[in-house]
Amino acid sequence: MNPPLQNDQFLRACLRQPTDYTPLWLMRQAGRYLPEYRASRVRAGNSFMGLATNPDFATEVTLQPLDRYALDAAILFSDILTVPDAMGLGLSFGAGEGPRFAHPLRDEAAVAALRAPDLEHLRYVFDAVAQIRRSLAGRVPLIGFSGSPWTLACYMVEGAGSDDYRLVKTMLYARPDLMHRILDVNAEAVTAYLNAQIDAGAQAVMLFDSWGGVLADGAFQRFSLAYTRRVVEGLKRERDGARIPVIVFTKGGGPWLDALAASGADVVGLDWTVDLGAARARVGSRVALQGNLDPNVLFAPPEIVAQEARAVLDAFGPPQRADGGWDGHVFNLGHGISQHTPPDHVAALVEAVHDHSRHIRQKRK
Amino acid sequence: MNPPLQNDQFLRACLRQPTDYTPLWLMRQAGRYLPEYRASRVRAGNSFMGLATNPDFATEVTLQPLDRYALDAAILFSDILTVPDAMGLGLSFGAGEGPRFAHPLRDEAAVAALRAPDLEHLRYVFDAVAQIRRSLAGRVPLIGFSGSPWTLACYMVEGAGSDDYRLVKTMLYARPDLMHRILDVNAEAVTAYLNAQIDAGAQAVMLFDSWGGVLADGAFQRFSLAYTRRVVEGLKRERDGARIPVIVFTKGGGPWLDALAASGADVVGLDWTVDLGAARARVGSRVALQGNLDPNVLFAPPEIVAQEARAVLDAFGPPQRADGGWDGHVFNLGHGISQHTPPDHVAALVEAVHDHSRHIRQKRK
Repeated sequence: MNPPLQNDQFLRACLRQPTDYTPLWLMRQAGRYLPEYRASRVRAGNSFMGLATNPDFATEVTLQPLDRYALDAAILFSDILTVPDAMGLGLSFGAGEGPRFAHPLRDEAAVAALRAPDLEHLRYVFDAVAQIRRSLAGRVPLIGFSGSPWTLACYMVEGAGSDDYRLVKTMLYARPDLMHRILDVNAEAVTAYLNAQIDAGAQAVMLFDSWGGVLADGAFQRFSLAYTRRVVEGLKRERDGARIPVIVFTKGGGPWLDALAASGADVVGLDWTVDLGAARARVGSRVALQGNLDPNVLFAPPEIVAQEARAVLDAFGPPQRADGGWDGHVFNLGHGISQHTPPDHVAALVEAVHDHSRHIRQKRK
Repeated sequence: MNPPLQNDQFLRACLRQPTDYTPLWLMRQAGRYLPEYRASRVRAGNSFMGLATNPDFATEVTLQPLDRYALDAAILFSDILTVPDAMGLGLSFGAGEGPRFAHPLRDEAAVAALRAPDLEHLRYVFDAVAQIRRSLAGRVPLIGFSGSPWTLACYMVEGAGSDDYRLVKTMLYARPDLMHRILDVNAEAVTAYLNAQIDAGAQAVMLFDSWGGVLADGAFQRFSLAYTRRVVEGLKRERDGARIPVIVFTKGGGPWLDALAASGADVVGLDWTVDLGAARARVGSRVALQGNLDPNVLFAPPEIVAQEARAVLDAFGPPQRADGGWDGHVFNLGHGISQHTPPDHVAALVEAVHDHSRHIRQKRK
């Protein structure tokens, strides 16, 4: 049995329950901006996947930012592309480059042969989840995650990151049948993968729809959101009597806020282009919101970091509504933290979010 | 004196006047997807700036897409970065790469020394405008353009394209005084530059705010939109008795549609993430809308290109409102056309837009 949670502010905010302050965590909080992470990585053969596939290393780096900062959640150290790797597409990370697949899906035969992976190939992930959860010993909740079906499909067809998504969109428009087949398989695989993370101990799960925002209106609903919704519908939402919140984050998804709020997720992630106050007014009674500081703010001096963090909190406003009920806000960046971020600026951010959000709550009383 | 216009559908749509069909032009319509363009470029020493700085070549390539397709406007062949080049930043285009500045703005001294350029350094642009206008002989209107103050600043500080805008955003957050100084100079320079294009014969002008969409809500209004508005306010809006429409296009600007509609522009460009019908309902009585097909649609077979083009026209709906007045729609892509586009797919697009938009108008009668 895992010990009870000492800090449940994050889960409470996700579920729109009262909180003492606004909880925060940071996308890629266990990452290259931390010297201790870089040291772990060197020990793991200077390889991202060397860290991710070894539960000891994954646990070590997952906990590093928590030892340094008063963050309110841990997130599994892994990559969004583990699932297609387990499907046999051959994931690798070149030096200083992004992910690359040795066997991208480029023709009808490759698409027809695609199958949801045997979860045994992802055992290292579930082992890491269980080990991290034990090591956390109830300090903060653990978030599991996956790429969304569409975002996985982008990488699976392009074979790497892209700046125009030409190959995947050509397939989408010219052969929608093939694209739907990939997305069907991905949705099945992602659902099983996240449920296995929940079984292993993940206390919330997040779907990264990192590339949903490159789709045209109409195409987004058919090729990204429909499959996100299918995953969300298939997830275990309770475990050991605790509700498992689901977070959906479509980068660039501002135009589809209402649709995302109706996706079945408990929390919708927002990037920094969105006015949090306006978003809350629109959907805050249905979902919690997560976001949305521009990570580039962290390059400014600490006093400006604090000022911009306060502006995000003020945009959302006091989470307790005039009618006494609570809306949910989880503070985060609108994108992963940059490897060039000065670590002491992150300390300033965490302090400002906690202090100012307590202050906002007191003012209302 | 220039001869009268034979096809004024584009200008009429920009000004929300009745049109016979929905006019279209394509961002980067004179470009590498056309074999005749590639041949011209070889003759110009295989150099983009070799084409752009020579009015004969610029005229030749500007007219090429019009000879092939029934497009409703020409756009000056040039680059959005001519103004900072004329400020002495040293623009070049590497083989297969994007633009690069030899002397980016990285410190206070460089920013303090920045001045709006002597327009004589941009004489080649105005000469091209005049020559293209003469060569068009009234076939269709000619659009002039510039990068927006913010978009120019991105390149001027980063020194090249960027995927995280770290340097320019660090300056924005850490030294907003320096950023405002750059934007002041850029706004003055862009206003003078576009007015000189109008004097030379441009019949509409477009501000490309290509990177406005990377800014956070709040920062966008202060660092992009405020300077766009300043440029728009300073433009000559009439020439030889004709109104000169102004188009503002912020890629990723969907979240700020209302603010953009209040920028003073006649036309707001929209990328493909935006539902045109919803945008029209929101701002269509104040501005015309330009957009918004995903250029990747052009990789699909011609019948699908036509179907997707019809979907865009249907999303906007019949431009004549129930009250008898007209809203304005200019069909375009939501981004520049890809160099890999099959030219015959563009023919299918032009035909579909003209045919279906006539059909929509007839149905209403």
